[in-house]
Amino acid sequence: MIELLLIGIGTGNPDHLTLQAIKALNSADLILIPRKGETKADLAELRRAICTDVLTNPAVRLAEFDLPVRDAANPDYRAGVDDWHDAIADTWRQAIRDGVGTAGRVALLVWGDPSLYDSTLRIAGRVATGFELNVTVIPGITSLQALTASHAIPINDIGAPFIVTTGRRLRDEGWPAGVNTIAVMLDGECSFRSIDAKGVTIWWGAYVGMAEEIILSGPLSEMSDRIVGTRARARADHGWIMDIYILRRA
Amino acid sequence: MIELLLIGIGTGNPDHLTLQAIKALNSADLILIPRKGETKADLAELRRAICTDVLTNPAVRLAEFDLPVRDAANPDYRAGVDDWHDAIADTWRQAIRDGVGTAGRVALLVWGDPSLYDSTLRIAGRVATGFELNVTVIPGITSLQALTASHAIPINDIGAPFIVTTGRRLRDEGWPAGVNTIAVMLDGECSFRSIDAKGVTIWWGAYVGMAEEIILSGPLSEMSDRIVGTRARARADHGWIMDIYILRRA
Repeated sequence: MIELLLIGIGTGNPDHLTLQAIKALNSADLILIPRKGETKADLAELRRAICTDVLTNPAVRLAEFDLPVRDAANPDYRAGVDDWHDAIADTWRQAIRDGVGTAGRVALLVWGDPSLYDSTLRIAGRVATGFELNVTVIPGITSLQALTASHAIPINDIGAPFIVTTGRRLRDEGWPAGVNTIAVMLDGECSFRSIDAKGVTIWWGAYVGMAEEIILSGPLSEMSDRIVGTRARARADHGWIMDIYILRRA
Repeated sequence: MIELLLIGIGTGNPDHLTLQAIKALNSADLILIPRKGETKADLAELRRAICTDVLTNPAVRLAEFDLPVRDAANPDYRAGVDDWHDAIADTWRQAIRDGVGTAGRVALLVWGDPSLYDSTLRIAGRVATGFELNVTVIPGITSLQALTASHAIPINDIGAPFIVTTGRRLRDEGWPAGVNTIAVMLDGECSFRSIDAKGVTIWWGAYVGMAEEIILSGPLSEMSDRIVGTRARARADHGWIMDIYILRRA
């Protein structure tokens, strides 16, 4: 039996780690460190740094492996993601077999929390084909929480709902029905430009929780261009960017 | 200047604490421990236990104080909450003055995360009247994350939105438009009974993250009565309950 631990590590601040995450990492036989290629190399580096900082059990081994790259040429996005997840599951399976055979505790560090816009749980479901596998999830601080913390704001109005959605949805479908608060993730295109800015406030952040963090907030009508410019410069400076924002309608 | 640290502590599992939370607690001059009355006495006890476990700085002082009780007889719910928050802000102000005067670092432990269906940030805004106050938020694991972790499920379908709402909204407004996934919080009345169960799966949990945790999941049509019964028994056994659930439509 493989015990697979999916461990939320927060958003790049090593101090986001919970005591539960630290105990889980120290309980593993093997920690898998996926490498995603050069542009996100700093994230693999962060995983290594976290392990170095918190591992006190000398029996824990680390194994690095290269993740396959998604075939962006596939015109069917969902099928492309499907094939890609299968390919990732194959590399996990191989890394697990090489590391512990068919029995042991294997840990994976997951950016943010494994529940939120993350494919790790779905890939783990595919790995289960070919192994007896039990999955345990350790929750971690999400970028949404890091954003609200940095702005010192609640995400919801009193007793009111909010929606969490993607940049693509906001662009394609506009402001969702029935809510005055939207959290937008996975947005590479500043999709807040696609909505009517009147009466809308934005709380935006990039690299939230990390040393590089940038946050901006204010009326969307005043902040939109400034965020677009700030984002473009930060992306050019760092070679990558992860950003997130909340929109609230009066 | 008062530096007010609002520290998310997770959902009752002391191991939910982040390293950031532990550092923040140890950086405080004063930690305020509100007492909410006998029925939730275990939560004040938990706060004390967390402090005992993680405080290594002997200079940090703890101050307990009684929270005022909300006037449930006020027919205007929102006005009643408003008055209550004012009264709580008064007790904070008094406890801060007694503890550090007008300058110092004061910490409050917040169940879950200060951003999510929590009044601490709003009360802090009221405390600011009468103090020079700077608020810092330390994010913590939410009950929603503890729920998804215990069930080992993602909250969202791939690229799909989800809504977070309250039991009252679900009862009054039915299934929200535009989403197939709903997370329901603040529900004292098993409001999942108010919707058409056909094709809906529920993932439910009480005391998520704690030793007392109970989780149940399955088709809503089959699980509804069982959850209602389990919840009633658990509430009777413990004298209190906190539960949360996710509903997903096929």
